[in-house]
Amino acid sequence: MKTVRDDFTILKRQVNGHPLTYLDGAATSQKPVQVLDRIRAYYDRENANVHRGVYTLSQEATISYEGARAKVAAMIGATAAKNIVFTRSTTESLNWLAQGYGPNQLEAGDEILLTQLEHHSNIVPWQVLAKATGAQLQYVSLTADGEIDLADFKNKLSKQTKFVSFAHVSNVLGSLAPVKEMTALAHEVGATVIVDGAQAVGHFPIDVSDLDVDFYAFSGHKMLGPTGIGVLYGKADFLEAMTPVQYGGEMIERVTLEESTFQEVPWRFEAGTPNIAGAIGLGAAVDYLNEVGLTAIADKEEELMAGALSALAEIPDLTVYGPKDAKNHHGVLSFNLAGVHPHDVATVLDMAGVEVRAGHHCAQPLMDYLGIQSAVRATFAFYNNQEDLDRFVLALRQAREYFV
Amino acid sequence: MKTVRDDFTILKRQVNGHPLTYLDGAATSQKPVQVLDRIRAYYDRENANVHRGVYTLSQEATISYEGARAKVAAMIGATAAKNIVFTRSTTESLNWLAQGYGPNQLEAGDEILLTQLEHHSNIVPWQVLAKATGAQLQYVSLTADGEIDLADFKNKLSKQTKFVSFAHVSNVLGSLAPVKEMTALAHEVGATVIVDGAQAVGHFPIDVSDLDVDFYAFSGHKMLGPTGIGVLYGKADFLEAMTPVQYGGEMIERVTLEESTFQEVPWRFEAGTPNIAGAIGLGAAVDYLNEVGLTAIADKEEELMAGALSALAEIPDLTVYGPKDAKNHHGVLSFNLAGVHPHDVATVLDMAGVEVRAGHHCAQPLMDYLGIQSAVRATFAFYNNQEDLDRFVLALRQAREYFV
Repeated sequence: MKTVRDDFTILKRQVNGHPLTYLDGAATSQKPVQVLDRIRAYYDRENANVHRGVYTLSQEATISYEGARAKVAAMIGATAAKNIVFTRSTTESLNWLAQGYGPNQLEAGDEILLTQLEHHSNIVPWQVLAKATGAQLQYVSLTADGEIDLADFKNKLSKQTKFVSFAHVSNVLGSLAPVKEMTALAHEVGATVIVDGAQAVGHFPIDVSDLDVDFYAFSGHKMLGPTGIGVLYGKADFLEAMTPVQYGGEMIERVTLEESTFQEVPWRFEAGTPNIAGAIGLGAAVDYLNEVGLTAIADKEEELMAGALSALAEIPDLTVYGPKDAKNHHGVLSFNLAGVHPHDVATVLDMAGVEVRAGHHCAQPLMDYLGIQSAVRATFAFYNNQEDLDRFVLALRQAREYFV
Repeated sequence: MKTVRDDFTILKRQVNGHPLTYLDGAATSQKPVQVLDRIRAYYDRENANVHRGVYTLSQEATISYEGARAKVAAMIGATAAKNIVFTRSTTESLNWLAQGYGPNQLEAGDEILLTQLEHHSNIVPWQVLAKATGAQLQYVSLTADGEIDLADFKNKLSKQTKFVSFAHVSNVLGSLAPVKEMTALAHEVGATVIVDGAQAVGHFPIDVSDLDVDFYAFSGHKMLGPTGIGVLYGKADFLEAMTPVQYGGEMIERVTLEESTFQEVPWRFEAGTPNIAGAIGLGAAVDYLNEVGLTAIADKEEELMAGALSALAEIPDLTVYGPKDAKNHHGVLSFNLAGVHPHDVATVLDMAGVEVRAGHHCAQPLMDYLGIQSAVRATFAFYNNQEDLDRFVLALRQAREYFV
């Protein structure tokens, strides 16, 4: 794998007198200089509003913005750039689906099938839609290891199921959903399949055409891109069937005082000035991921996870949640120390410069299912190294000695 | 005024062999190095998700993000930082109002009062809301100079008027609405007042508390900030009465499988990971504007506009739209050359490195009112100079000789 560590300036800083050990990539990734330089170059050389001007600068900005769309499409195996809608985030992508696609498709008695491990962003928009339409929410159970229970999934699928929406990778357990198999089963009953890819894109190769999902949502800032840019992929027919959720600016074809007509997909969904620099930065993140290689990234994350799982197995009073196998953690590791509040663990780790999350990780139904209030979560990215892992394990051992 | 020209790197570039003469600030502003350096420093030193981690990096990011909110609040005279909701853009701010506040307040027969000069973003969301609720849209007429006709405004205000929404400054004509007077009149009939400040903020001092508007919307990228960040200001009671439009992530207090409760204002509206770097960049833009001084900025824009108006008055076959007085143009100047398509004018100007907009400027109802399809628009920002103005006038004279 390309030597990447030096590309991440922030990793050279100190926290509380220790080298920064950043283990919260599942909340947001760090960004390589290549992405930050591209954003700066945009503002220093090309900045203009897109799609609006006949002049040189605006055309250059438009080419860069639309070029980023094509890069994103290619990375996830979309048929064409026009299958990519730029949003703010995974959360916005899912909300736009629930608001722009959901109401057209649902009636009272229809069912929306989620799983017990979803992030709040893949639960609450559907709760609101269900309340508005009279549809019912159903939740697929998990196995003891925190994986989606396929038997229960099959059991809950029916002719009433209109939407199936689930995370590609759990943001708490790191477990992978069998997307292709679930999608085929859901299509058999005629359901639309939506996948939350926030924790998947940028971690291993993904081909949405092969998976055959109807919609796929993800965030730029979790895959080396800047904040404020996200993606909604949709098959052409599905995007065509979706109503815009925001109105104004360049999504419009013609406005009179009485009514309006709208542009074609995907621009119809991008009302107002989009996050131009954000999209271009995301395009640079795609270039960087391709250069490092998504298979190499997956291997590196698995190697660090294997080390973490075996080190944590030797720490008494420590419970790891989710799969036992490093292959099925995708860099995400949640755990608790018996009798110690996760916030206290995170605070003590922070004293050693080790930055981990503590909380419910926006997945309270999963916490309820696991019978806990909260957990500590460490995530391992391909830009983490063995020293990060060692400092994490050492700090965790010290935390245990301090508290237990 | 501080010497600002050197702070804008892009202004040193060439376009088609000529120095860049950027006259499209009404579409998007250029950004000073101070803003771009702050964004870079965020990613290089502080990048972490906000409100979510107990660790140092996340706390630093949260302090910077919330600090930006406080800077924005102070600049526009808001009572408190919590009156500021971060959105993507003016367009999103107005859509959230129409979707999150509108439906709770309206019933069939109620009226929404706009003006004939609004940007599409301040028309179409209300058209959609009107259609959904059975409310009626009304439009205030303009005077011959393209200003809001106050007599007609008074005439159209009634007990049925529930919303009044209008632009602080027209994005085509540059004319200023008498916001304080209109707001007082609208409040007399009990209407909620919404102002689109996209072309106002960053151009002269604004005090939303003194104006007494209920909501005020604007964009970061038009006031030296990055793309992808906007603002919705609201009085406390009004934001409390507004329903969130997007759901998920940190806007949530508690989620069960059945239902959810939400955080307090303003965080309840900011679902998912926000544009953290965008907000922090916007905060740096506020610092920069304060350092240059908003009164000095207004003076500089007026000085350039006075020069432009007097130079254009000497060009035959040229019609300027809107007020005759440079004081009431706020940097925005729209015009046409008789018999020449605006796109052709813009294309010829671009050959000389002069970047102006041509089109309907997302204000087709105003174009209809003016009896034109489109116009050329040049905007003068405080970072433009006399040489920009001279190059613009020369290129325009050459365009006329070429075409007419």
